[in-house]
Amino acid sequence: MSQSADPVTSFAGAKVMITGGLGFIGSNLALRLVEQGAEVLVVDSLVPDYGGNLANIAGFAERLRVNIADLRDRHALRVLVPGQDFIFNLAGQIGHLDSMKDPFTDLDINVVAQLGLLETCRALNPTARIIYASTRQFYGRPDRLPVDEAHPLRPVDVNGINKMAGEAYHTLYHQVYGLPIVSLRLTNTYGPRMRIRDARQTFVGIWLRRALEDGVFEVWGGEQCRDLCFVDDAVDAFIAAAATPAATGHVYNIGGPPPVSLSELAELVVALAGAGRFEQKSFPEERKRIDIGDYWADDARFRAATGWAPRVDLREGLRRSLDYYRAHLSAYL
Amino acid sequence: MSQSADPVTSFAGAKVMITGGLGFIGSNLALRLVEQGAEVLVVDSLVPDYGGNLANIAGFAERLRVNIADLRDRHALRVLVPGQDFIFNLAGQIGHLDSMKDPFTDLDINVVAQLGLLETCRALNPTARIIYASTRQFYGRPDRLPVDEAHPLRPVDVNGINKMAGEAYHTLYHQVYGLPIVSLRLTNTYGPRMRIRDARQTFVGIWLRRALEDGVFEVWGGEQCRDLCFVDDAVDAFIAAAATPAATGHVYNIGGPPPVSLSELAELVVALAGAGRFEQKSFPEERKRIDIGDYWADDARFRAATGWAPRVDLREGLRRSLDYYRAHLSAYL
Repeated sequence: MSQSADPVTSFAGAKVMITGGLGFIGSNLALRLVEQGAEVLVVDSLVPDYGGNLANIAGFAERLRVNIADLRDRHALRVLVPGQDFIFNLAGQIGHLDSMKDPFTDLDINVVAQLGLLETCRALNPTARIIYASTRQFYGRPDRLPVDEAHPLRPVDVNGINKMAGEAYHTLYHQVYGLPIVSLRLTNTYGPRMRIRDARQTFVGIWLRRALEDGVFEVWGGEQCRDLCFVDDAVDAFIAAAATPAATGHVYNIGGPPPVSLSELAELVVALAGAGRFEQKSFPEERKRIDIGDYWADDARFRAATGWAPRVDLREGLRRSLDYYRAHLSAYL
Repeated sequence: MSQSADPVTSFAGAKVMITGGLGFIGSNLALRLVEQGAEVLVVDSLVPDYGGNLANIAGFAERLRVNIADLRDRHALRVLVPGQDFIFNLAGQIGHLDSMKDPFTDLDINVVAQLGLLETCRALNPTARIIYASTRQFYGRPDRLPVDEAHPLRPVDVNGINKMAGEAYHTLYHQVYGLPIVSLRLTNTYGPRMRIRDARQTFVGIWLRRALEDGVFEVWGGEQCRDLCFVDDAVDAFIAAAATPAATGHVYNIGGPPPVSLSELAELVVALAGAGRFEQKSFPEERKRIDIGDYWADDARFRAATGWAPRVDLREGLRRSLDYYRAHLSAYL
């Protein structure tokens, strides 16, 4: 499949690699691409504290190829990268507190390994279209709302610095070497296949789990507003970015339906679960220093470029998430 | 020497470590601090292609302590960092083309090693005042002139991404852990002790060398304007940043006297040297992609915070540089 200026209308037969493909968004993306007839190669390290989980591909594992490898393993990349038409690059360390406790590992995964992937693509597969999972996280505390892509970058933790550098590498390798790359700065994403064992990946996961167990979850602060993107909408965004040649070389915000306060979100979770309760807590000191207050995205540029828009509202997204974890809870504990 | 809110009026007796202290700016800073009576420890890797040169401390080597070590060597740092009152952190890889040819080494030195130094300070000497040599280089092609600190960061090469991340780490370790850190985004700096063997450190070095040898140097482009800071003024800026507690936690631009075009600069070099000539060339493709056009700094914030101002105009600075290299040329070839 060669790159052209025309939008991609089908991924049938396309060779697709997904790094972090056993993780939350990666596995949902894998499922979608398998359904569209793509030849999907999932690459994942399955580092225990991260998002990868073999349960995420239960039911469609036989329709794709899994290669357990760490993105830091450049020898593995030299074998896996050639021949791919699309590389969805979602592997990363995303825990904020983990990044502060072990900054070198975060740097290794989110910067050194990203550079390794890009160097491998440059050398062995410079036409593969790369869609990079970036984050809104390095905007830091917003100067203005909604936050557009021109907002200053002010990372508030090690993870933010490293993701900022990782994205900058992707942009540079497009500008200097012409690799066809799009970066998506995702907002909080939630839905089936997210990690619910703890709050490492998203606070929404542990909230849903506690509610389903009829337990108690903690809401830190509560007044701060966030937009939340249901994972099917995030998958739509990755597909749209891959399918739209005009998006090449750009960095786009991906938001969601209108923002809510965390208190409103917590109430909705409890109401929809019909179980559990929450306690509002003031921020622990360690967390307060890196809290960013309100955030919601201005994603007008991506909508204009691709026609993408979120389709699943918060109530529906939470309902589908609760249904998923009611059916599969034990695989995620 | 304990940290206080009062400006430092003397470095006599202060324990000072300078990373990259055998390099261009580092050695000039070492000389100044030695003259002020500081106990100076110079740490330098002497990697051949970088700026370190034992000739840079000829004449005052016996008045300071030299420890050859790479900043990537965290075991060395654990021994060298404790007890220092001030750490001037100037070690780095600065060659743009080198960073593109070997991006992993640049990343290792400009990011991983910087994180290692900060982690060492956090663990073993959290009150040492750190002055970090950052760069204007990651502003990329300016949106507006002069460029102030709020200008967007758009690195145009691997070195720019890594220096941006290195500075972000310094800022973060101040914000989160309270380390007393100031970062200075230097513009083009020139003067005695700069590398003149090639253009790795600054194009001014090779221009002066060729002029002194009555040879030919190349001016790429020529119309683009730059501000140039004489090294004594840069040293003043490091001293002022170290001496001003109110500067802690800030990132400042350091500029120079009014900007000139590269053609004007080349003409001045030839006139003052009374020898040599130059050829104007159009940019090679490799370089064009990372050229940033005009740049000059708005350094009003640093001037207001510290009272610093550049004191050496371009003609005087070039004259002093030519005098230095006339006397010491063989040590720099």
